[in-house]
Amino acid sequence: MTEMPHLTFDINIPGVSTGHLVVPKGADCEALWLPVIGINKGEGPRLLITGGNHGDELEGPIVARRLVEWLPESQTCGTVIIAPEINPLALKAWTRNTPVDGKNLNRVFPGRADGSVSERIADAVSRVLLPMVDTVFDLHSYSPIWDCAPSVIMHPVADANLMAKMVRVAEAFKLPVTLIWEHDETPGMFDTVAHNQGKVLVCSEFGGGIVTANALAIYEAGVRNALIALGLVEGKAEHPRYRQRQSSQTLETLLSDALESPAPGIFEPRCSILDEVKQGGLIGVLHSMGSLSAQPIEICAPTTSIVYAIRSAGYVDSNESVARLARPLKV
Amino acid sequence: MTEMPHLTFDINIPGVSTGHLVVPKGADCEALWLPVIGINKGEGPRLLITGGNHGDELEGPIVARRLVEWLPESQTCGTVIIAPEINPLALKAWTRNTPVDGKNLNRVFPGRADGSVSERIADAVSRVLLPMVDTVFDLHSYSPIWDCAPSVIMHPVADANLMAKMVRVAEAFKLPVTLIWEHDETPGMFDTVAHNQGKVLVCSEFGGGIVTANALAIYEAGVRNALIALGLVEGKAEHPRYRQRQSSQTLETLLSDALESPAPGIFEPRCSILDEVKQGGLIGVLHSMGSLSAQPIEICAPTTSIVYAIRSAGYVDSNESVARLARPLKV
Repeated sequence: MTEMPHLTFDINIPGVSTGHLVVPKGADCEALWLPVIGINKGEGPRLLITGGNHGDELEGPIVARRLVEWLPESQTCGTVIIAPEINPLALKAWTRNTPVDGKNLNRVFPGRADGSVSERIADAVSRVLLPMVDTVFDLHSYSPIWDCAPSVIMHPVADANLMAKMVRVAEAFKLPVTLIWEHDETPGMFDTVAHNQGKVLVCSEFGGGIVTANALAIYEAGVRNALIALGLVEGKAEHPRYRQRQSSQTLETLLSDALESPAPGIFEPRCSILDEVKQGGLIGVLHSMGSLSAQPIEICAPTTSIVYAIRSAGYVDSNESVARLARPLKV
Repeated sequence: MTEMPHLTFDINIPGVSTGHLVVPKGADCEALWLPVIGINKGEGPRLLITGGNHGDELEGPIVARRLVEWLPESQTCGTVIIAPEINPLALKAWTRNTPVDGKNLNRVFPGRADGSVSERIADAVSRVLLPMVDTVFDLHSYSPIWDCAPSVIMHPVADANLMAKMVRVAEAFKLPVTLIWEHDETPGMFDTVAHNQGKVLVCSEFGGGIVTANALAIYEAGVRNALIALGLVEGKAEHPRYRQRQSSQTLETLLSDALESPAPGIFEPRCSILDEVKQGGLIGVLHSMGSLSAQPIEICAPTTSIVYAIRSAGYVDSNESVARLARPLKV
């Protein structure tokens, strides 16, 4: 008989429980025991916080663990479930995809009980944790080789009510950017599974290679702001200070807002995130390797835009993405 | 007959020459043509600037290419040779070591004419470029998974005169830190080969995963300051602004200043670079994966120190380095 994915404690028991979400073993690896804390303070919102969906995004797992330090004391109502490391195999390997099966966990939701390990993790999260809550914060980071504004992103959903609720929750983080990201119909995302069940799921994103104490503090402050807005903890929300600014803006980015490299070469960023760049303004240049006589190729903004994310300097192939632009959301 | 490494132009001809340093083919790969510019403005200092020694350190190659844009106009005397990408194979692969032979280029100097490709590159640089100059700026970066203060580092050398000259050149960059790094007798470094010939070689370092426009501007300003100090260009040196400060300090770091992880787990930095940490002060914590009940392990400063570099948050093994401390140089 196949073991079923399960939580090692009963979330309905009031108080604080720590234990594991058990992802059953399969043909490719042993059972995984994912650490989970459940904080049940009675009636109120029911929130799931997940980190470590991608193993090269460390902010989420650490911010989630920092919440574990103070939330059990501070939470005044409702239920919060925190699973800081839902993909420990990828975290240990510092890889986006799961090493054992090579799959991107956030492309195999809702998963399969008899699938490979990424699919079994997705199945356990979807079938055991997701039904317990009405809201999900999936703590991501943009990429280790990109600089990106601290932000909360979501894809548009058809249900206008749900969409409005998601934007409100996302804006409550008070991070520099709330971003509505045009959906390219990527299958298998955790977001879609939650949205299809009418649940709020927002992804916080933080970018930029190295994960510093300062970046973690900003990220944690954003999550705390959202917990206050949901009514789960008391306190006053505050804009975290980021690069000398304390502001938030709600932006949208379209599929056409991904700028690509026109040729192979070394990409050099010539602007910074949150810069406003006029139409035709310089985003970066591309240096042809092997020669110092060729002029660098200029990569310019096709429309007046705000730079949401920009690739770290480095060698890129043709058509590799080098910047993600955005603009104020028209309401 | 084996081809000899050579420069495709004559550096003794006054003016600006662009061409290549040819690294002959060997058993493992074809000849490499490394782009080089030579600017000969007559009598004066003779400087070599190299970038891309390690392929995952992009600041150097880009800053070197930015110099190519303005130095030919601005240089008033002497000779400058710039080789922005001395290890193109590693740069294309974004790896520290050279992919073809798996070797660290900065551990095989002075190289071998009949060796593997890294050894042939080292041989070409040592035999063709190094004899042409009296000073070398080898433009490095710390590591993509560390945060590190913009700095110029050097290992102590026995020759007190040479050492004093190197410290003067390094301090002329006016970057936040000039660092004297106790030597662990690592063989095969470019530094050692140059120092043994009585030449000044300093390594500039910049840390921090993603390479941004702002980081590149600071790095370039540092190199410009040093060019002014050497008398190669005219102008006024200026402290680049880094994290709201405009200051420089000269520090030393000893072999014992590398803090290591006491166990495997997720390292979380709890301090920032350039922080002064008292003896026993918290540098970071280590989270045991798989459990939320265990208390994080604290990693503390053994002596009052300045944080020169700190590892990005991430999974680390036991005894993996997580911080590099330093303290003001006693003069």
